Amino acid sequence: MKDRVVIMMGSSKDEEFTKPIRSTLKALGLSYELHVASAHKTPERILEILEQDAGSEDRIVYITVAGRSNALSGLVDANTHYPVIACPPLGDSLAIDLYSSLRMPSGVAPLVILQPESAALACAKIFALWNATVRERVLSHQKKMKDKLMLDEEKLRGTVE
Amino acid sequence: MKDRVVIMMGSSKDEEFTKPIRSTLKALGLSYELHVASAHKTPERILEILEQDAGSEDRIVYITVAGRSNALSGLVDANTHYPVIACPPLGDSLAIDLYSSLRMPSGVAPLVILQPESAALACAKIFALWNATVRERVLSHQKKMKDKLMLDEEKLRGTVE
Amino acid sequence: MKDRVVIMMGSSKDEEFTKPIRSTLKALGLSYELHVASAHKTPERILEILEQDAGSEDRIVYITVAGRSNALSGLVDANTHYPVIACPPLGDSLAIDLYSSLRMPSGVAPLVILQPESAALACAKIFALWNATVRERVLSHQKKMKDKLMLDEEKLRGTVE
Amino acid sequence: MKDRVVIMMGSSKDEEFTKPIRSTLKALGLSYELHVASAHKTPERILEILEQDAGSEDRIVYITVAGRSNALSGLVDANTHYPVIACPPLGDSLAIDLYSSLRMPSGVAPLVILQPESAALACAKIFALWNATVRERVLSHQKKMKDKLMLDEEKLRGTVE
Amino acid sequence: MKDRVVIMMGSSKDEEFTKPIRSTLKALGLSYELHVASAHKTPERILEILEQDAGSEDRIVYITVAGRSNALSGLVDANTHYPVIACPPLGDSLAIDLYSSLRMPSGVAPLVILQPESAALACAKIFALWNATVRERVLSHQKKMKDKLMLDEEKLRGTVE
Amino acid sequence: MKDRVVIMMGSSKDEEFTKPIRSTLKALGLSYELHVASAHKTPERILEILEQDAGSEDRIVYITVAGRSNALSGLVDANTHYPVIACPPLGDSLAIDLYSSLRMPSGVAPLVILQPESAALACAKIFALWNATVRERVLSHQKKMKDKLMLDEEKLRGTVE
Amino acid sequence: MKDRVVIMMGSSKDEEFTKPIRSTLKALGLSYELHVASAHKTPERILEILEQDAGSEDRIVYITVAGRSNALSGLVDANTHYPVIACPPLGDSLAIDLYSSLRMPSGVAPLVILQPESAALACAKIFALWNATVRERVLSHQKKMKDKLMLDEEKLRGTVE
Amino acid sequence: MKDRVVIMMGSSKDEEFTKPIRSTLKALGLSYELHVASAHKTPERILEILEQDAGSEDRIVYITVAGRSNALSGLVDANTHYPVIACPPLGDSLAIDLYSSLRMPSGVAPLVILQPESAALACAKIFALWNATVRERVLSHQKKMKDKLMLDEEKLRGTVE
Repeated sequence: MKDRVVIMMGSSKDEEFTKPIRSTLKALGLSYELHVASAHKTPERILEILEQDAGSEDRIVYITVAGRSNALSGLVDANTHYPVIACPPLGDSLAIDLYSSLRMPSGVAPLVILQPESAALACAKIFALWNATVRERVLSHQKKMKDKLMLDEEKLRGTVE
Repeated sequence: MKDRVVIMMGSSKDEEFTKPIRSTLKALGLSYELHVASAHKTPERILEILEQDAGSEDRIVYITVAGRSNALSGLVDANTHYPVIACPPLGDSLAIDLYSSLRMPSGVAPLVILQPESAALACAKIFALWNATVRERVLSHQKKMKDKLMLDEEKLRGTVE
Repeated sequence: MKDRVVIMMGSSKDEEFTKPIRSTLKALGLSYELHVASAHKTPERILEILEQDAGSEDRIVYITVAGRSNALSGLVDANTHYPVIACPPLGDSLAIDLYSSLRMPSGVAPLVILQPESAALACAKIFALWNATVRERVLSHQKKMKDKLMLDEEKLRGTVE
Repeated sequence: MKDRVVIMMGSSKDEEFTKPIRSTLKALGLSYELHVASAHKTPERILEILEQDAGSEDRIVYITVAGRSNALSGLVDANTHYPVIACPPLGDSLAIDLYSSLRMPSGVAPLVILQPESAALACAKIFALWNATVRERVLSHQKKMKDKLMLDEEKLRGTVE
Repeated sequence: MKDRVVIMMGSSKDEEFTKPIRSTLKALGLSYELHVASAHKTPERILEILEQDAGSEDRIVYITVAGRSNALSGLVDANTHYPVIACPPLGDSLAIDLYSSLRMPSGVAPLVILQPESAALACAKIFALWNATVRERVLSHQKKMKDKLMLDEEKLRGTVE
Repeated sequence: MKDRVVIMMGSSKDEEFTKPIRSTLKALGLSYELHVASAHKTPERILEILEQDAGSEDRIVYITVAGRSNALSGLVDANTHYPVIACPPLGDSLAIDLYSSLRMPSGVAPLVILQPESAALACAKIFALWNATVRERVLSHQKKMKDKLMLDEEKLRGTVE
Repeated sequence: MKDRVVIMMGSSKDEEFTKPIRSTLKALGLSYELHVASAHKTPERILEILEQDAGSEDRIVYITVAGRSNALSGLVDANTHYPVIACPPLGDSLAIDLYSSLRMPSGVAPLVILQPESAALACAKIFALWNATVRERVLSHQKKMKDKLMLDEEKLRGTVE
Repeated sequence: MKDRVVIMMGSSKDEEFTKPIRSTLKALGLSYELHVASAHKTPERILEILEQDAGSEDRIVYITVAGRSNALSGLVDANTHYPVIACPPLGDSLAIDLYSSLRMPSGVAPLVILQPESAALACAKIFALWNATVRERVLSHQKKMKDKLMLDEEKLRGTVE
């Protein structure tokens, strides 16, 4: 019974986009594995992966990364009882492609988040529910952000003109 | 070796929307069959239908009808050599959901059309390439439209104020 | 150490919108508590709730429900190590208000989902990672959806015209 | 009785955009001819081409390429019984100009697709209905895509971190 | 050599929309004639009308009324030296269909205006350049608007609370 | 009694944008004068120009050039019986600023066109109603466009691959 | 030297929309006067009001209410040293008309707010800077909102299911 | 009892964007202080600043600068009786992020303005209500703008071609 993150990309072109997801996962104490499979072109491979994972005793969260019309996130979500986080690589096409990640049919429930680092953080918050190491790292990550802001604020308070 | 139209809906709720597709197909001399299968929830059923059809000697055009995030049209198209016409039932959510039917990955090529009657007409124009009966009905359909417009124009020319 | 869902609304007007979240949670075997607190008007109350929850040994997922400019989801997320699911009640203002739930600053990571029933399902999939009762209900819920679709498909296959 | 693709551009400036359409058509075993004629400025030329083609015994699919307000695709479609594929060169003006290719009056039925390579593929899928050479190339093209993805997936499975 | 307004509709369904154009034209002292002809379906009829008008000695302004993808206004404009005012009947589809009236190719120059009464007024301002009767009515129409506003303002100034 | 075009810019920064308007006007045989006056900052200057022009015997068409929130076109139009052509310099902010040129109150009727060369052409078509020189140039301009297209088409017909 | 709010509407049709502005102003201890004047049609009247007010010793805040293309707010702002709050009555045309209130030229600085009650509140916060009565009412208004929310929260805490 | 502007940024990355706000404030005779505090990450710091300021006898206007989903402006506004001017640094994401600054819950009333120089000017117009120095500078700033425009207009009047 392992804690595992499974990152699924719709195309090998998305590998660059997953780098901050992966480095943040590692920084937060989580290991992951990486797949590329297209909901349009190789759906059988996706179903095969999901079936294998369903048979494991592992605790898994999927992070799905697919741009343009995102069929991947919904296909994964509808075929697993594990949670699915959709992190579509949208860039300049945000307003064009976003809805395809959100407008799911009833009973299909991927969770959407835009920034890759934050996808990893949200994923870690789930594992933190039972994994104390991850929880400590999440808390420390959040504390650092706040400390950084408070330090910035202290410096600025000197600025009265 | 039959000429067949296969209409695939993503949900049984879309049946109403397919009625003008079906009545127009029949008026243009084409028979069809109707399926409901979800690219998210029952992708295996879609692949099964496509495999059966691929093994037939029939000449088939698929018309795919799926709203919200349309994964159906791309899944069907990527797994068949037959042409696919996507006719998403968008209504008030046109500007929200349209792009999920159009922004396909490379090599996935469903053809998009908005009005259900016109989806049937476009479909018939394909069969008209070799089927003389359908061709006559398409030509007659187009002629009627033009005659109606010319008649409207003749009546109006009386209107000079 | 209890499994708990905490639903936070930005206004008591959102109570109606939370009903399908709540009934779906119960159907999936999860208990919840309900709060109303505004990130703009009563942020101290939000921080107070979060502090109490952080001190508990419970496993908590927050579901945040706030329309218009959604400050609630981000405020909750930045101040807890528990996962946060944002389910904004958008209705006709989807294209206007959606981005305020998604465009978070770095390190703030609420997960967005649009349909209230699906927010509950996504939440249950998280608890299903360790809670066998919830897992069985999630799997049964997904199976029912697929069975319903397969049954619809069987009936329709009779429709060849 | 030949199989012919007729590409119509609204302006000679669109020639660059048609290059991937043309190279993909050739790769899939289809010959084409190229026209430039404006629905606004030289509609008589368009009608003349359509009349000549209608008198031929050929099996023709039109691919219409016109940006900004696309009147070309609808004009061609309404005046021929052959299928029409609209592939508008939109680039950065996607959200501005797309609707002019889709919002057709009743009885006008061009089929819309965005990527030029995919327009050629969709076109080839139509010819594949009776032309075995084209069908083999379409199937081979689709198989290559899937093989490439499966190969990418095999390589990545090594990535477990 | 007459002063004439020629209203061209793309469909007889647009007749209702033209009523305020027509009543305002009459109120401003202008006579008009009414046509229905589709740029997609009956372009020859449009070209025939334009040719007849070009041969007349009349001073003509066209008002073109076509919804959805507006091909009519550009087709008329490119084939006449007379000015063309496009007044598309958009209603709820303003944000969807507006651009098809504005995004013309180079050298095609219909002038766009949204409100039907204002299309008639703008048209009258052109005839007012040489037609003194129309000019007087335009000036009187503008004066009445201002007087009405000044009267409203006088009444309101009593409102100090 | 002269034929005059009056170009009004809302800011001297718009001068570059007016260059193709001005060169096209001259090419079509029309002289113009150029003003800069802001509807927000120097409305009195605008009203002064309009009053002077109203007192002349000239035949005038205004071309108004103002970006962002375009108050200039409506202010000019409401205070003159001469026609007003609004040609807003929108560039990348088309979808942001366009409506401020079109959504006029009742009785305010500037005519909108996007391309600067076309604004000049539309303007010339108005003067062509009585000015034979301008009419010849408009017809010649339109003929050149069509000849260019027909020539392009002739060359391309060689392209059959 | 009085404290005065001056509400300017672009049309008498906007009077209904101003009612919650007016009732909230009165509830917060502020008197107001009401004008109707159009930036397009009666700009002289606007300039006349502004000149009179500039000559007074009063402390004035303008609230400008004009829909569609909002020229009023910028015209008022550019011609007075008093603050201007733009509260455009947008309703269903929010996404269409909003930018015309915000995209001002340099040096023109109306402040935009959407809800009429909130326009009055923001206005009162300005007067509260020196007027103790208004300040007390603003503070009391804010406290009531928070108390209402805290009361709602207390009631709901009973809801644990 | 001092006149003070308090600029609050949501991130130290926004400091560059505040430079024209700050230089314009100084040019108009106003001093300011600068804070960085996040409504999501350090809300306690914001509430602390607001409480200190509320206890002072100073006359304060807040200028809030926060991009993406702007929670800062509403949080500040709901917790102070001082006026709040929201000047979000939107750049290319204008259409994406604007609404999060405007769609406030009832009783929360930040005033929105886009250009940083204009935020400072609007702020100064508030202080000008009682501060004669600032009023003179505002009037002089407005006069310079008009003089510049009138000078541009004088030069251009030479341009008659």
